[in-house]
Amino acid sequence: MTAYAIGIDLGGTNLRAALFRDPLELLARPGADSAIEPVRHHRELTGDDRGPEIIADRLARLVFDIASDVDDTVPVGIGFAGMLRGHEGVVAQSPHLHWRDVALGDLMRARLGPRFPVGIYNDVNAITYGEHVVGAGRGARDLLAVFVGTGVGGGIVAGGELITGSDHCAAEIGHMKVVLGDDARLCACGLRGCVEAYAGGSFLERRVRDELAAGASSRAVDLGGGPDHVRLSHVDVAAAGGDAYALALYAEVAPLLGATLANAVTLLNPQRLILGGGVLSRTPVLREQVVAAFEAYCNPPALASVEVTTAALGDDAGIVGSALLAARP
Amino acid sequence: MTAYAIGIDLGGTNLRAALFRDPLELLARPGADSAIEPVRHHRELTGDDRGPEIIADRLARLVFDIASDVDDTVPVGIGFAGMLRGHEGVVAQSPHLHWRDVALGDLMRARLGPRFPVGIYNDVNAITYGEHVVGAGRGARDLLAVFVGTGVGGGIVAGGELITGSDHCAAEIGHMKVVLGDDARLCACGLRGCVEAYAGGSFLERRVRDELAAGASSRAVDLGGGPDHVRLSHVDVAAAGGDAYALALYAEVAPLLGATLANAVTLLNPQRLILGGGVLSRTPVLREQVVAAFEAYCNPPALASVEVTTAALGDDAGIVGSALLAARP
Repeated sequence: MTAYAIGIDLGGTNLRAALFRDPLELLARPGADSAIEPVRHHRELTGDDRGPEIIADRLARLVFDIASDVDDTVPVGIGFAGMLRGHEGVVAQSPHLHWRDVALGDLMRARLGPRFPVGIYNDVNAITYGEHVVGAGRGARDLLAVFVGTGVGGGIVAGGELITGSDHCAAEIGHMKVVLGDDARLCACGLRGCVEAYAGGSFLERRVRDELAAGASSRAVDLGGGPDHVRLSHVDVAAAGGDAYALALYAEVAPLLGATLANAVTLLNPQRLILGGGVLSRTPVLREQVVAAFEAYCNPPALASVEVTTAALGDDAGIVGSALLAARP
Repeated sequence: MTAYAIGIDLGGTNLRAALFRDPLELLARPGADSAIEPVRHHRELTGDDRGPEIIADRLARLVFDIASDVDDTVPVGIGFAGMLRGHEGVVAQSPHLHWRDVALGDLMRARLGPRFPVGIYNDVNAITYGEHVVGAGRGARDLLAVFVGTGVGGGIVAGGELITGSDHCAAEIGHMKVVLGDDARLCACGLRGCVEAYAGGSFLERRVRDELAAGASSRAVDLGGGPDHVRLSHVDVAAAGGDAYALALYAEVAPLLGATLANAVTLLNPQRLILGGGVLSRTPVLREQVVAAFEAYCNPPALASVEVTTAALGDDAGIVGSALLAARP
């Protein structure tokens, strides 16, 4: 019985690590109304020096420090923003870290040895698993989590298991296509028409600023203090007040994001749809329109069995989820 | 150890049942190159009298007959075309049988008793599971099967498990939306824009006949012997010959179906995409265009890990899959 697990969140800004007690107890009774508090917690800036060897050295030191008084085997889960390949912890790419084809799993195993078995996870998958076990997904064996922040990411739990796909790139909901053809917006992935290119925070904010700078009229400009300072929260306040520009924008974007959620729920028939991420939490009007569109487009039997809810764990979801994933029997 | 399992395919035309030996052995080594031949097989017409009690009586008699010389407990899997609700075998609706809210599981359990534990499955899920264990999906723990026949149906296996969703209506890929707005085509489900309303055989054939009857010019009319006799295979032959009508139709339909496949693969990251069903098997030109569109729209990492292949089990897939699903430990 594993008494402890370590969760690490390797983010673009912060590097966080935490030691948790009794992860298997939590996993054995998902849905229990149990708070999960780390025994020990550490946070530092990721910093500028992001070479794989240097980061691996720092992560290893962190693990040794945080588990210094634990004698057991301690599983270590590392979540990072980016794309994995295969199941051995190869980072195919991470824009934040400027990594490509980094064998992070091997780098960590070489440093940590057998006492600290390592799992490497996509951060959104880790967050989703954390929400599943101790957050907004408690008690649901089938759930879909969708996070609309700078990008659009997702995670799937089916039959109580995290679905990672054959090559660890399942749940890339942001790259589902919502507009077809040559006029579709170009996504950072290189293809056109991905929902992320319409509803992802970076794309949407840039588009809004471009359109307002080009002369579009909206109260969001006053709220933000100039076109270049407009944030999506300003657009949402404007929309709430009936602003024509904001409402036209939402009339385009909300159906696209809503239809994407509907298609994913139609395919997966989850019991819960968990929405999270910085964009939707700051844009209540947009969120309401997205949910309305989702309900209009979803296959009725799937809609009848799903509850739409909000991510509950906040910033801790990543470390909790990574620790729990690593601790799975 | 269960030595036998029975699979039943309750179709709109035929009612088929078969007794299989050693299902657990097959399940224990999916990917084994083992033919699966029924010990005994029976087929009769479903007939006109489709009341639930009458059908249940007939199914029970079939089970007793086919397993008359077996002493063991024999799991019985029943696959049918239609929609389930919950996990106790309630048929929410079946257009073929004209059923609504029929507790088929209870009807069968009352007749068969504990010696024949019963599982009720959506037929496409059963077919998918059969392909997974002994067909085109052998050796793949993650697969998506999509069948384009009169409608568009699908099945998902993830991590070696059939994904049924929280209420047994997962994988309804035919009801993923591909066109948004009031002009989208109306689907039989009551909503607009479902891919089935564009690419499902019934819809597509009706549309072609309507357009040709209204005067559209195509060589398919000659091939079919009049607009009302045109089948999709005629359209495909016309397309192969450069027929403008057929090519324009495909230029609309192939991207919609291809994008749907791409979105599902982007979400699920399967190792194999199995295509089947009466439409795609008779329309090689359409199939080629659909696969090309799929490749163009799919998230590149998911595309890199998927192999597109063709369903292998034919008419037997349903009885094999139902038997194997029922026999699962």
